[in-house]
Amino acid sequence: MLQSFKIVADDKVDDREINRCSFPFLNMNKEVATQVVCIVGTGDFGCSFGKRLLRSGVAVVFGSRNPRQISNRLPEEAQVLSVKQAVAACDIVVLAVRQQHQAALEGELSSVINGKILVDVSNTDKRPAQNSIPNTSELQMLFPQTHIVKAFNMISAWSLQAGLDDACKKVFVCADNVNARRKVMELAWIMGLEAIDKGSLANAKELEEYTHQFFPQWRIPMRVTLGLLFVFYIYTIIQDVLFSYFKHGSDRSFRLAISLPNKAIPSVALVLLSLVYLPGTLAAYIQLHRGTKYSTFPLWLNNWLLVRKQLGLAMFGCAGVHVLISLALPLRVYVYWKWVLSIKHQIDKNWTITFTNIDFWQRDLYLIFGILGFSIVVLLAITSLPSVVNSLSWKEFHFVQSKLGWLSLLLCTAHTICYGGSRFLRSESYHWGIPPLYIPALMLPCTTIFLKLPLLLPFLNRELQMIRQGQTRSRPGVEIEMFYA
Amino acid sequence: MLQSFKIVADDKVDDREINRCSFPFLNMNKEVATQVVCIVGTGDFGCSFGKRLLRSGVAVVFGSRNPRQISNRLPEEAQVLSVKQAVAACDIVVLAVRQQHQAALEGELSSVINGKILVDVSNTDKRPAQNSIPNTSELQMLFPQTHIVKAFNMISAWSLQAGLDDACKKVFVCADNVNARRKVMELAWIMGLEAIDKGSLANAKELEEYTHQFFPQWRIPMRVTLGLLFVFYIYTIIQDVLFSYFKHGSDRSFRLAISLPNKAIPSVALVLLSLVYLPGTLAAYIQLHRGTKYSTFPLWLNNWLLVRKQLGLAMFGCAGVHVLISLALPLRVYVYWKWVLSIKHQIDKNWTITFTNIDFWQRDLYLIFGILGFSIVVLLAITSLPSVVNSLSWKEFHFVQSKLGWLSLLLCTAHTICYGGSRFLRSESYHWGIPPLYIPALMLPCTTIFLKLPLLLPFLNRELQMIRQGQTRSRPGVEIEMFYA
Amino acid sequence: MLQSFKIVADDKVDDREINRCSFPFLNMNKEVATQVVCIVGTGDFGCSFGKRLLRSGVAVVFGSRNPRQISNRLPEEAQVLSVKQAVAACDIVVLAVRQQHQAALEGELSSVINGKILVDVSNTDKRPAQNSIPNTSELQMLFPQTHIVKAFNMISAWSLQAGLDDACKKVFVCADNVNARRKVMELAWIMGLEAIDKGSLANAKELEEYTHQFFPQWRIPMRVTLGLLFVFYIYTIIQDVLFSYFKHGSDRSFRLAISLPNKAIPSVALVLLSLVYLPGTLAAYIQLHRGTKYSTFPLWLNNWLLVRKQLGLAMFGCAGVHVLISLALPLRVYVYWKWVLSIKHQIDKNWTITFTNIDFWQRDLYLIFGILGFSIVVLLAITSLPSVVNSLSWKEFHFVQSKLGWLSLLLCTAHTICYGGSRFLRSESYHWGIPPLYIPALMLPCTTIFLKLPLLLPFLNRELQMIRQGQTRSRPGVEIEMFYA
Repeated sequence: MLQSFKIVADDKVDDREINRCSFPFLNMNKEVATQVVCIVGTGDFGCSFGKRLLRSGVAVVFGSRNPRQISNRLPEEAQVLSVKQAVAACDIVVLAVRQQHQAALEGELSSVINGKILVDVSNTDKRPAQNSIPNTSELQMLFPQTHIVKAFNMISAWSLQAGLDDACKKVFVCADNVNARRKVMELAWIMGLEAIDKGSLANAKELEEYTHQFFPQWRIPMRVTLGLLFVFYIYTIIQDVLFSYFKHGSDRSFRLAISLPNKAIPSVALVLLSLVYLPGTLAAYIQLHRGTKYSTFPLWLNNWLLVRKQLGLAMFGCAGVHVLISLALPLRVYVYWKWVLSIKHQIDKNWTITFTNIDFWQRDLYLIFGILGFSIVVLLAITSLPSVVNSLSWKEFHFVQSKLGWLSLLLCTAHTICYGGSRFLRSESYHWGIPPLYIPALMLPCTTIFLKLPLLLPFLNRELQMIRQGQTRSRPGVEIEMFYA
Repeated sequence: MLQSFKIVADDKVDDREINRCSFPFLNMNKEVATQVVCIVGTGDFGCSFGKRLLRSGVAVVFGSRNPRQISNRLPEEAQVLSVKQAVAACDIVVLAVRQQHQAALEGELSSVINGKILVDVSNTDKRPAQNSIPNTSELQMLFPQTHIVKAFNMISAWSLQAGLDDACKKVFVCADNVNARRKVMELAWIMGLEAIDKGSLANAKELEEYTHQFFPQWRIPMRVTLGLLFVFYIYTIIQDVLFSYFKHGSDRSFRLAISLPNKAIPSVALVLLSLVYLPGTLAAYIQLHRGTKYSTFPLWLNNWLLVRKQLGLAMFGCAGVHVLISLALPLRVYVYWKWVLSIKHQIDKNWTITFTNIDFWQRDLYLIFGILGFSIVVLLAITSLPSVVNSLSWKEFHFVQSKLGWLSLLLCTAHTICYGGSRFLRSESYHWGIPPLYIPALMLPCTTIFLKLPLLLPFLNRELQMIRQGQTRSRPGVEIEMFYA
Repeated sequence: MLQSFKIVADDKVDDREINRCSFPFLNMNKEVATQVVCIVGTGDFGCSFGKRLLRSGVAVVFGSRNPRQISNRLPEEAQVLSVKQAVAACDIVVLAVRQQHQAALEGELSSVINGKILVDVSNTDKRPAQNSIPNTSELQMLFPQTHIVKAFNMISAWSLQAGLDDACKKVFVCADNVNARRKVMELAWIMGLEAIDKGSLANAKELEEYTHQFFPQWRIPMRVTLGLLFVFYIYTIIQDVLFSYFKHGSDRSFRLAISLPNKAIPSVALVLLSLVYLPGTLAAYIQLHRGTKYSTFPLWLNNWLLVRKQLGLAMFGCAGVHVLISLALPLRVYVYWKWVLSIKHQIDKNWTITFTNIDFWQRDLYLIFGILGFSIVVLLAITSLPSVVNSLSWKEFHFVQSKLGWLSLLLCTAHTICYGGSRFLRSESYHWGIPPLYIPALMLPCTTIFLKLPLLLPFLNRELQMIRQGQTRSRPGVEIEMFYA
C-alpha cells in the first residue's frame, strides 16, 4: 500500500473521538480515508478523470507504460507509476484505454488485478452491431477473477474538465458484484455526478449503446411531423399556386415562402395536438369495453401513448412558428401592396368596404381563440421541463396536461373554424374541387373531440373512474385481483 | 431465509479482498447483498413497484392470497408465495393493498410481521377529513410490534413503469423508527427516486394529504388575478361598450373579444407587478420602525411575502397574453376598416393628418418601454425555473429578482403613462365621469414606487442594510441578540 | 450525553431484528439514532438552521450565552443550554455566530470542543481581500484540536425557513478531515440540500468568496454585448439622425427610441452569434495544424471557448428584443403616417406603386429566414437550461448546439443579406460615405462561415475527426500517447 496517498493526515486529533459521532446515514471507518484510485491510461479521458477525482479529494495514481515520460497534461498532485505498480497499489482500477489496446494489457495486469474492481469506461466509436459482444464480456474473459464494472462511459473528457454544469451528469453503473457496483456509484456521487444503478453486467451492452443514442423517443413523432409538413405543403402548392398558374396563368410562386408555410404549419400543429389527446380517448374506450385496466393495450396504442409528450412539443414548435409568421404578416410588402390596391379601388369607385358587427366578432374571436390556445400550449410546454415536472404533484400535473390540454385543443379547433367562417360553403374556395387545407386539417381534431364527448356522460365517466382506480367488473375468477388492487 | 434470492453470486472472487477497499461514503457488509423485499398485493402498484425494484437490482418476492393463480402482469424474475411465507422471508414488507382490505390481512400477517419494516404506500381516494385518523395509525394498531413507514404514496404506478423522467420523483418518507426510515429512504434512492426525510409518523397524515394537494401556493394569487381580471373587465365594459350603447346607441359589443381584454389584462399585469414589490417595501418600513429584523411581521404581510413568486408568474402570463394581443392588432378587420375610413376621410377633405415629433416620441417611447419591461419580465420568469434558481448564488438571484424586477416595474409604469399621454386631461376620455381603466390601474404601481423612493435615501438605506445584517438598534435587554446574530 | 435527545424511542420492537435487514447502501448502528447537533448562536441563521434540522428528524440543542433569556424565535422542540453544556453534549457543533464575535467564545469552547466537528457557516459582509486569511484558518488557530468544516455559508437563513424550492440548494463542504467532511455532507443531504465535496480547508477562502460571486462567467460576454450595443447605436445615430440633421436639416431624433435600436440590436445579435461559432472553427484549424488535440490552446482562445454559452444567451436576448420591436412596428404612429402619405401621394399622381415577384420573394424570404433562424435560437436557449442539458446525451447535445446552431447562423446571415438586398450597391445608402450598419455587421458572420467551409471538405473533415478521437499524426516520441488515448 502506498502510504503516501493518505489524504489529509489530521494527526492532531484523536480519531476515536470523532468516530463516536457517526450519523445514521453512513458509518465510516477510520482507515477508509486512505483510499486511492488507479487510472490506467494517460490519455484525454484518464487525465480529466484524474483531475476531477483529485478536485473531489480522492487520491489518484496513474498507471503508464512509460512512467518516466510523463505528459504535462497529467495533474501534478497525482503519482505516475508503471501499470503493474499502480494497479497493485489500489483496489479500484479505472481502465481508460481504448478498447483495441485493452487486450495488450493482459500480461501486465493479470497477476495484480485479481479480486479488484476494474471499471470499464470505454465506448465504441460506432454503434455496436446487434449481435456483437459488449466490451465488458471480453474484459471478464481476460480477467476472470476481477469485478468488472461498466460506468462513466456517457461522460465526456471535456465535460469532466470544463465543469459539469453544462453537460449531462448521469452515470449509469452496472456490475455483477453488488458491492463493486455500489462502490463505483459512490465514487460517481463524490465526483459530483449522478449515479444510476443499472443492475448486472448483462445490461452493459445497453450502456454502450446509450452514447450512440440519438433522440430515440423523437424518432416517430419527428417522422410524423415532417411527413405531415411535407404532405400539407404540397397540398397547398397544388390548391393555391398550381391552380392559379394553370387556371389564371398568374405567377404566385412567391407565396411558397410565407403564405403557404403559414397554412401548412398551423394545420400540422392542429393535427399534432389532436394526436396528443386521441390515444388517451381510445384507451378509455378499450378500458370501458374490457371492464378492467389490467389488460395490456395493443402495441401500437401503447407506443402512441408513450410519445404524447414529444408530439405535444412538436406541436408547440409548429404553433410558435405559426404565431411568429402571422404576427409578421403586416411587415410583408405583398400585404402593403394589396392594401394600397384595395384603398385605391375603393376611392376610384367612391365606394367603401363595409363590415358588419358579425364580421368583427368572427375575426376577433378567431384571433382571441388562437392567442388563448397558444398561451395554454406555452404553459403546457413549460410544465414539460424536467425541473418543473419534478415539482408538481400527480394531481397538478394531470390538471395541467389533461384538463388544460383539452381546453387548448378546443380553443385551437375553434380558432381554425372561426378562421374559415362560412368560406367552406362557397364554391370559389374549392380549386379543382380540392377544399382549402383547413378543412381536412379539422377532421382529426373534430373526431377526437366527438369521441371524448360520450366519456363526459356521468355514468360512463363514473365507470371509467372506477376502472382506473383498479376495480374490475365482476367476472368469475378475477375476485382475487379486486382484493389486491 | 430464501437462499435462492441471493443477487448475483460472484463466487469466483474472494470477497475478503473487495472488502478492504471500502470507500468513506459507505461501508458495506458482504451479507447485505442478499436483501429481498416482499410486496404484499399483486395489483397495479405492486407489480410496477416490483418491476422497478428488480430493474434496480433488488430481489423481490410477492405475497399473494392465491399464489398459484399468478397474474401474467407480475414480473417473471419475482417469486410468488403465500402472504405468510413471503413476509416471513423478508425484512422489508411493502403493503400494496387498498386501505379497505388491509385489516383483512391481520390474521395472516400478525404472526410473522413482528419487528419488521412495514411500508404503507396507500392513499385515500378522496381528501381525508380534518379529524380522520391516518392509515398508518390504524396499521400501527393492527401490528403494534412493527416498524410502520409511510412512503411512496406520491408515486404513481404509471410513472414507475413508464419511466421516471416525466414525473415527480420525490418520495416523502416518515417513520418513528429512524433506522426503518433510513432503510426505506435508501430503497427509494436505489430505485432512482429522490427520498426526502419527513420525520416521525406524526406527519403521515400530511403525506396522505399531499397527493390531494392542488397548487396550494397558487390559491390566493390565482384568486387575486382572476378577481382583478373580472373587475377590470366589467369596468371596461361599463366604461366603453355600455356607455357607447346608452349614449350613442352604437353597438360596439365586438370589442368584448379583443379590445376590452387588451385593456383589462395589461392593467391586471401592472397591478400584479406592483403587488410583487409592495410587500417588501412595507416590510422595510416595519423593520425601520421596529429597528430590528428579529420580530415577526403581521401574518397577512408574511403570507403576502411568500406568494410574490406566484404573483410574478401570474403577471408574466397576463403580460404575455397582452403582448400577443397587441402584436395581433394589425391583423384585425376592425383596424383595417378604421384605417380605410381614415384615409378616405383625409382624401375627401384633401387634408393630411399631421403628427409632431413629440407624437412620434411619445408613441415610440410607449412601445420601447413596454418591450423592454416585458423582456425583463421574461428574464425574471426564466430565473424562476427550479433548475435555474439552483444554479444562482444568493447575490445573483437577488440582483435579478429585486434590482431588475424594480426596473421592470418602472418600465411598465412608464409604458402605461406614455400610453395615456395627455389623454387623462381631456374630458372626453371620461365616460359617465369614469376615467379610462389605465388611470386606476396606475394607482398601485405609482404608490409602490413612491413608497420605495425614501428607502433609497442614503441614511435610510444604510440603516436598513444594518438591520438586515442582523444588527439591532440598541435597546436594553437585546444586547445578547446582537452578540449571537 | 443527553439521554433526553434520543429521537423516537421505539421500545416496543426488538432492534436486533431490524438490524438484520440492513441494505447494501448503508449500514446503520443502533446507537447512531441518538445523534444531536449543537448550534452555538441563537441569531437568524441559527434559528432557521435548527428548525430545518428538527423538521428533518435531527435533534438540536442550542448553545446560548444567556440560556434563560430564550428568544421566542427558537423552535420549541429544541433545548437551550449554556454554550459549554451544549457543546459538551454533542459531537457536531455549528458555529452560527458572526465572525467578529467568534474569538470571544474561545474561553468557553476550548475545554469542550477538542476532537469534535466545528462547522463554520460564517460569511464576510464584504468581498474578502486578496491576501486575507480565511475565517476557518483563524478558527483552527483558536481551536487547534478541532475538526474545522466550512459549509452552509452559501445558504441563507431565509431560504432555510421559506422552503428550499425557490433557492439554491448547493452546499459546498470543505474540511481537512475526511470523516468530518463526509458527516457534514451527510447532514446537508438529510436536510434536503445538495452537498458538494470541495476538498480540504485550503479551499475555504474560495467558498467564502462564492457568496460574493456575481455572474463571473458573464463578465466578458456582458461587456462585449454592451460595448457592441453602444458602438453600433452611436454608429446608427451618426449614419442616420446626425446625417439627416446636418445634410437636410430635418429633425429625426424620435428615431432614437425604436428605429435605431432595431438596427443596432439585431446587428449585435448577428455578431454575437458568429462569436459563438468562430472560436470552435479557429480551434479546428489549430488542431489540424498541430496534428493533435493534446496541446493546449492559447489562453485567449480557451477563455473564448468557455464563454460560448453566455455569448449565445446574450444573442438570444438581443434577438428576442429585435423580434418584439419588429413585430410592434405596425403599431407605430410614424409607420401609419408614412403609409397615409404614400397612399395620398399615389392617388394625387394617379399612379400605383408596383412590385415585381422578385420584390415579394426577397421580402418574404427575408422574413421567413429571420423567423426560422430565431425559432432555432429559441430551441438552443431551451436546451441550455440546466435540467434539459442533464437529460441529453452528448451526441444529442452536440447535434442541437453545433449542427442546429450553424444552421441558425446561416439563416440569420441570409436574413440580413435579404434585408439589404441590392441596397448596398446604391450610393444613396451611404451617408458621408458610411455604409448602413448591416454591412459592417455582416463581416464577422460571413468570415466565420467562409472559415468553416474548408473544414467540410471530406479529407480535412476526416483528419479532424481522427484528431478529435485522440489520434496524433505520427511523430517520433508520441507513440506512447496514441496507445493510451
